[in-house]
Amino acid sequence: MNVLVINCGSSSLKFQLINSESEKVLAKGLCERIGIDGSLTYQPAGGEKVKSDKAMPTHTEAIQFVIDALTDAETGVVKSLDEIGAVGHRVVHGGEKFASSVVITDEVKAAIEECNDLAPLHNPANLIGINACQELMPGTPMVAVFDTAFHQTMPEKAYMYGLPYEYYDKYKVRRYGFHGTSHSFVSKRAAELAGKSYDDLKTVVCHLGNGASICAVENGKSVDTSMGLTPLEGLVMGTRSGDIDPAILEFVAKKEGLDISELMTMLNKKSGVYGLSNNLSSDFRDLENAANEGNAQAKVALEVFAYRVAKYVGSYVAAMNGVDVIAFTAGIGENSGTVRSAVLKYLGYLGITVDEKANDTHGEEITISTPDSKVLVMVIPTNEELAIARETVALV
Amino acid sequence: MNVLVINCGSSSLKFQLINSESEKVLAKGLCERIGIDGSLTYQPAGGEKVKSDKAMPTHTEAIQFVIDALTDAETGVVKSLDEIGAVGHRVVHGGEKFASSVVITDEVKAAIEECNDLAPLHNPANLIGINACQELMPGTPMVAVFDTAFHQTMPEKAYMYGLPYEYYDKYKVRRYGFHGTSHSFVSKRAAELAGKSYDDLKTVVCHLGNGASICAVENGKSVDTSMGLTPLEGLVMGTRSGDIDPAILEFVAKKEGLDISELMTMLNKKSGVYGLSNNLSSDFRDLENAANEGNAQAKVALEVFAYRVAKYVGSYVAAMNGVDVIAFTAGIGENSGTVRSAVLKYLGYLGITVDEKANDTHGEEITISTPDSKVLVMVIPTNEELAIARETVALV
Repeated sequence: MNVLVINCGSSSLKFQLINSESEKVLAKGLCERIGIDGSLTYQPAGGEKVKSDKAMPTHTEAIQFVIDALTDAETGVVKSLDEIGAVGHRVVHGGEKFASSVVITDEVKAAIEECNDLAPLHNPANLIGINACQELMPGTPMVAVFDTAFHQTMPEKAYMYGLPYEYYDKYKVRRYGFHGTSHSFVSKRAAELAGKSYDDLKTVVCHLGNGASICAVENGKSVDTSMGLTPLEGLVMGTRSGDIDPAILEFVAKKEGLDISELMTMLNKKSGVYGLSNNLSSDFRDLENAANEGNAQAKVALEVFAYRVAKYVGSYVAAMNGVDVIAFTAGIGENSGTVRSAVLKYLGYLGITVDEKANDTHGEEITISTPDSKVLVMVIPTNEELAIARETVALV
Repeated sequence: MNVLVINCGSSSLKFQLINSESEKVLAKGLCERIGIDGSLTYQPAGGEKVKSDKAMPTHTEAIQFVIDALTDAETGVVKSLDEIGAVGHRVVHGGEKFASSVVITDEVKAAIEECNDLAPLHNPANLIGINACQELMPGTPMVAVFDTAFHQTMPEKAYMYGLPYEYYDKYKVRRYGFHGTSHSFVSKRAAELAGKSYDDLKTVVCHLGNGASICAVENGKSVDTSMGLTPLEGLVMGTRSGDIDPAILEFVAKKEGLDISELMTMLNKKSGVYGLSNNLSSDFRDLENAANEGNAQAKVALEVFAYRVAKYVGSYVAAMNGVDVIAFTAGIGENSGTVRSAVLKYLGYLGITVDEKANDTHGEEITISTPDSKVLVMVIPTNEELAIARETVALV
C-alpha cells in the first residue's frame, strides 16, 4: 500500500509518499508560504527536485497541488488517487486522550481540537491539514499519529510537576513529552540491532536536532523524557533555552521590561546555543567551525549543550536503575561525532568505551561502542515519516 | 574565642554563641517580629528555653536584647562583650564578587549591596544585621560568610544558562547555587569519615530540608548544584516547585489571570510537595503519615520528591564521571530513612548496597552503605552555624 504522510504547519506542509511493502519513498516535497503566496517543492524518487510558485490561499489548494504532482503524467509516481491507500497525519499534541495512533473520525477530530490549548501553534494547523485531505480524498482512510502518544506510559512520578495539584486537575498541566514517534522508532530499532527483546531492555534515546529531547525507554515503554508540557523544557536546543530557574523570568522581565509573551518568544527563539554563542548561530556546524577558530562563546555553547545531554543521560540511567543501550539520533545526533564524543566522555563510569573510528562517521546506522563496552552505544538515523507510514498501515 | 553567629532576615534574627576551641554552643536563640512588635527566644547551653516579648522597632534593639541576654548576670554565658571575639554573619548572595568568606569592611558592605538585586529579600536584611552589630559592637571584627561562595568554583558549562548571552553580560544572570556553607561542611566531613583526601574525592551532597539542593563536589570544589540564580530551581521542595517547563508560566498566567509576581509567589509558596499533595502539608512527617494511611496524593508527592533527588544524583555522577561518596544532610536528609531508602533504590547500578538497619536511624552521623558497597553512603548532620564560626575564626 502507498501511504501519504502529511506534516502540516500553519503555513507549510511536508509530505512523503511511502510504499509500505518496500518502505521506499516514492516522492516527497514541501508546500511553503500557504495563505501568503505559495510554492511547491516536489521530488520523485531518483528524479530532480523542482520548486515552483503556486497560488495557495489555503491548505486545500496546497494539497491539491501535491495530489496533482503525485499523479502527474510525466513526473508523478502513481496513476491516480486510487493508488494512495491511506494518509498518515502527524499531530503534535494528543494530551492525555491519545496513548497511540488512531483512525481519524469526527470524534477524534473533536478530541484533537480539545488539545489545542496545549499546542496552540501546532494542533489547529494539524487539523486544517486533516480537513483539507478529507475534502480532497473523501474515500481514503486517515490516521493521526501523535508526537506525545509514546510518552503516555510515563508514571506519575515522572509526569507530575511540583505545582499546585489543581493545575493538573483543572488544566492537565503535566509533562507530556514530544518526538515520541522518533523515540519509539529508534528505541525499537536499537533493540533489533542489539539482538535483544524490546520488552526487556533499558534504552536512553538522545534525539538531538534543532529541537532536542532525551527519552528513557524501559521494557518498550517511555518512562521519562526531557520535554514537558511544551517542547521548551529540557536540553539547551538550537534557539530554545531548555531548563532554567523559573525565577529568571521575573528577574529578566523587570530588567528588560518584557511581558510574559515576550519572555516566551525570547526563550523559544533567541536562547539555546544561539543565545549562548552571543547570537552567532543555532547551527552546530557553524558553532563547531567557530569554536575551532577560537571563538570562546561558541566553545562554551557546545560545552553546555554536551554537558546537559550527559546530565540527562545520567539522570535517566538513575530513573531506570541502569542502562543497556544509548542511542543517538536526529540531525546532530546522527552527524556530529564531536558532540557524541563530548557527551560520552562523561559516561566512562558506566563502563562505556567508545570506538573513536566508528564514531567518526555521519548519518549511518552504526554501533560506536567497542565490543567490551558495558553499554551498547549506537547511532540510529530516525525516520519519523516511515514510522508514521507503519503506524498508518497497521490501523487501516 | 567565642564567636557570635548571626543569621538575619527581614523581620527575624537567629543567633548562636559558639566557642571555637570546644566547638560547643554556649547559647542560642531567635528574635522574631522585628519591626512589628518583637519577641526574644533565648536558651543557654543546658538551660531552659525562655521566650519573652520585647519591643523591637529595628534590628538594633533586637541585637541589644541578644547582647543583654548573653551577658545577663543570671542566665548569660559571658561576662561582657569583651568575651565575644568576633561575629560571623550569614549573607545569602555574594554574586560573582565573593568566592570565599571575608572580613567585613565598608567596601565589602558596598559589594554586598550591589548583589541586592540577586537576592532582594535576603541581602538587604543581612546588611541591616551587619550594620546593627557594628553599631553595638564597634571594636569587634565581623566576617561575612556567603551561601553562594562555595559554588563559585563551578565551570562555565555548569553555571551558564541557555539564554541570550547579554543577560549574563549585563545582569550576571547565571547559576549561583545556595546552601554552600552546608555543602562545604558536609563534603569535608564526608572525606574525613571516608579517610580519604578531600582533594581527590567525588562526592554528591543531598541537602534535603524544607529548602533542598544537591551539590557535586569534585576534589574539594563545587562543580555543579541544583539551585540556580535563586533558590527556586532544582528539586521539588517543601513549597517550592523546583524545575518546571518555563512555558508553564505563560499557560497558568492565562488560565488563572496571574501576573508574574503572583506566579513567583505561587512557585515559591504554594508548590512543591505542599502543592503536589493538594495542600496537605509541606512537612514530610505529615506526608509520610498520610501516605501510610492511604492518601494517594501524599504518596505521589513523596515519590516525586525521591525520584527527582535520584535523578539529580544520577546527573551529577555523570557530571563527575563517577562518585565515591553520597551524603545526606539537613532535616529530611538526616531524619528520614524512608526518603533515603526511596532515593537509594534507584542507584543500585552504581554498585550501592544499603545497610537497612543503619539507615533506620535519625539525625546521627553514620555510614548507611554496607562494607562491600562500591559507593560510600553517609548521613552527616549539617551545622551551618559551626561552619560560619570556623570560617570567622580563620579570618580574624
